[in-house]
Amino acid sequence: MSAVSDLQRLIGTDGVLAPSDGLERYERGYRYGTGRALAVARPATTGELRAVVRYCVSNDVRIVSQGANTGLVAAGTPDSTGDQLILSLERLRAIETVNVGDRTARVQAGTRLSALNRQLATHQLFFPIDLGADPSIGGMIASNTGGSRLLRYGDVQKNLLGLEVVLADADATVLTDMKALRKDNSGIDLKQLLVGTGGTFGIITAAQLEVQRLPVQTATALLVPARQEAIPQLLNLLEAEAGEFLAAFEGMSANAVEAALEHNPRIRNPFDKGSIPPYTVLVELASVLGPDRIDLSDFLADRLGAYMSADDPLVADGLLGRSEDLWAIRHSISDGVKALGRIIAFDVSVARTRLPALRAELLAAVHANYPFLRVCDFGHGGDGGDHFNIVWPPDASSAYDASTVDALRDLVYDTVVKRFGGSFSAEHGVGPYNVAYYKRYTSPEERAFAGKLKQLCDPKGILGNIDFG
Amino acid sequence: MSAVSDLQRLIGTDGVLAPSDGLERYERGYRYGTGRALAVARPATTGELRAVVRYCVSNDVRIVSQGANTGLVAAGTPDSTGDQLILSLERLRAIETVNVGDRTARVQAGTRLSALNRQLATHQLFFPIDLGADPSIGGMIASNTGGSRLLRYGDVQKNLLGLEVVLADADATVLTDMKALRKDNSGIDLKQLLVGTGGTFGIITAAQLEVQRLPVQTATALLVPARQEAIPQLLNLLEAEAGEFLAAFEGMSANAVEAALEHNPRIRNPFDKGSIPPYTVLVELASVLGPDRIDLSDFLADRLGAYMSADDPLVADGLLGRSEDLWAIRHSISDGVKALGRIIAFDVSVARTRLPALRAELLAAVHANYPFLRVCDFGHGGDGGDHFNIVWPPDASSAYDASTVDALRDLVYDTVVKRFGGSFSAEHGVGPYNVAYYKRYTSPEERAFAGKLKQLCDPKGILGNIDFG
Repeated sequence: MSAVSDLQRLIGTDGVLAPSDGLERYERGYRYGTGRALAVARPATTGELRAVVRYCVSNDVRIVSQGANTGLVAAGTPDSTGDQLILSLERLRAIETVNVGDRTARVQAGTRLSALNRQLATHQLFFPIDLGADPSIGGMIASNTGGSRLLRYGDVQKNLLGLEVVLADADATVLTDMKALRKDNSGIDLKQLLVGTGGTFGIITAAQLEVQRLPVQTATALLVPARQEAIPQLLNLLEAEAGEFLAAFEGMSANAVEAALEHNPRIRNPFDKGSIPPYTVLVELASVLGPDRIDLSDFLADRLGAYMSADDPLVADGLLGRSEDLWAIRHSISDGVKALGRIIAFDVSVARTRLPALRAELLAAVHANYPFLRVCDFGHGGDGGDHFNIVWPPDASSAYDASTVDALRDLVYDTVVKRFGGSFSAEHGVGPYNVAYYKRYTSPEERAFAGKLKQLCDPKGILGNIDFG
Repeated sequence: MSAVSDLQRLIGTDGVLAPSDGLERYERGYRYGTGRALAVARPATTGELRAVVRYCVSNDVRIVSQGANTGLVAAGTPDSTGDQLILSLERLRAIETVNVGDRTARVQAGTRLSALNRQLATHQLFFPIDLGADPSIGGMIASNTGGSRLLRYGDVQKNLLGLEVVLADADATVLTDMKALRKDNSGIDLKQLLVGTGGTFGIITAAQLEVQRLPVQTATALLVPARQEAIPQLLNLLEAEAGEFLAAFEGMSANAVEAALEHNPRIRNPFDKGSIPPYTVLVELASVLGPDRIDLSDFLADRLGAYMSADDPLVADGLLGRSEDLWAIRHSISDGVKALGRIIAFDVSVARTRLPALRAELLAAVHANYPFLRVCDFGHGGDGGDHFNIVWPPDASSAYDASTVDALRDLVYDTVVKRFGGSFSAEHGVGPYNVAYYKRYTSPEERAFAGKLKQLCDPKGILGNIDFG
């Protein structure tokens, strides 16, 4: 194939994989779907990457950038045409600098989160985006991941100091803002165009990150809210009383917890007599101060006691546990739910005070219209995110049917976006799996503007596998 | 004048001020400079504002948006031609919603920071950008202000959830992202184009802000570092030991403190026998936890004692004081320095560990080349910002001379940007006063890209009084 040999001449034989080399691990999505690639280009330097981009621009070859291939909306995998080149960042994975005094790290885009955090941990530092997967830093930027500790540390955008980006114009122009300054308003903030746009506006090749001190103590508890509507009040109470230490406030439905416990037999059921409460909130406090200054376990136990013994208690039950044990439940949910049948996944968000009302309305609607489906949702109470995942069990009274799934998606998304003013994609970004909803819910003005921006960054429209216009 | 009467027909007599009405307070900069306006349009609704923009687009009238007119780079005041219309946001100042449970506030762009914080304080909340001035929220977004507590809360961008923006195209297109979601990656993040671009890409009319819990206790101290190079180590030690509570780490030169004390006789000199140390660091700890949980004054006193009695102490001297008294020194510096003579002001930043070396090099260069000038710098040690302000005293051996000032600016900016990889505008943005340095230090690629973005948002180039291309 001529593209393969052309690219091999540009960046070496090792740099390019042809379909005959077996491309499945690049073509198959992390959880869903598979496509077919023209080839995989694996440049080892920004210079090589630019050579690939210039070749693609002049030969009209479409490019799908791929980091660790852990995305959930197919933005990093090719479509089924076999015409798209996968541009893998996997060989651009150097951790170039860790500056302990500045709390900054300069990394190439293919660096894995786990690799970065291993190195940072030797300096009592970490990049504080807490995720189930192990993505590349470039992919995290392209999808602006949030995760379980956003409440305390914010999303990727808030921890990003600079980017190096290659545009898909004829020169493969490099835009660079890698000064790693905390205060810099000396021009336009070009990098922000790239955050959360999934590789369609440019290819992220390197980043400057702000990193954080690792906590030296944590205290973790499971709380059973007295009633759903009390959850936002409980969050406000914890923000007022546990203040700076509050690190996570994660919600789990009974179905989600049950799926996690069934799937991972090493997890002990922490609830009395094996019962699972209808909804559980996992609360974590964390601090860089040691227990000699303030003992977070004592502090959390004290607060739990007070909440449970109040006249009109917000908390019906609560138990402290080892952090690893309680988080193991939370982190086993995705795989546990997946094991129950076909998943219809959602990644939605609303204003956090409206999350209980949204859940109540969605649960009622799903039960009324699709009684054979099982909702196993879990989410981020601190920021209004909910993974409203629904399982179609293999033994359901009704057989799996794509048009039913489409109707269900319409129901959920219309409720979230139109009735609750929320988002159809809280932290997974936009890709082929949900671009139809982007088109449905985004104003014509914004889409027109996005289309013009795209034209500016990628005049021939070869980057990515969705159309933002 | 026809523009005035045309605009009065569009938005009413009250909405437009003519030169004969006296426009000085709109035309004169907060600290420096003055221009001359065609008129001042003061729309009371976004609809009226759009009508003004459409009129200006079709009649080629240039627009300078103005919030509270507290900017320092002349981005909000007209030039001397008398051809520019000031579009004042002062009548768009409603605080539309404060949602206590969500910790969000929806405001019109002309809302003053002080007005917002007064209302938020009734709910134990605040917008945590700490500044000497009292700007409008729209102006804060347009210049992405940072201030004295960035170390803890970040800059405006990090506390911004959404914007409403009017573009200067023929339709005066409104782009709206006012959902106030903490997690939303369902499209491009249009608002980021507007942050820090000083009104040249669009007119910010409203914003959704994330707001924070007000601390219930603070502890404040002045520390005298044992040596300049120890300052970053001291910061790291405080980050490790005082962790979540560290709210400010501000540096003040002796000349800056002396100017503050001379200017404001109500401030008591807190140092022994009236001596002023060569450099002082103001440290503030703050918490939403009460002193019954952890007493920050005791905690800070304990740490100060330990730092001073160490074998190789980082801190030579330290004193705790009332927070208001110590901050009064810091907040009196600007006016104090201004009273000493003509100011040559700088707002630069570098990586925070490099700030002592930058200061040493700049001080040596200024003293060697311009011994008659007095450097009165102060800055933000936590984020590498420094207001390297220089006074030309009225009784200097050499008379004030603009070409000397230009040479001095070249010396300082070249040192900051070229030798230290820093920024010539850390938090004041880019305006007519420093656009020449934007052109000098910004890469041709980035300027070309910025020019194309500008073309997209403002095809006729009528917005703002600088050219970002």
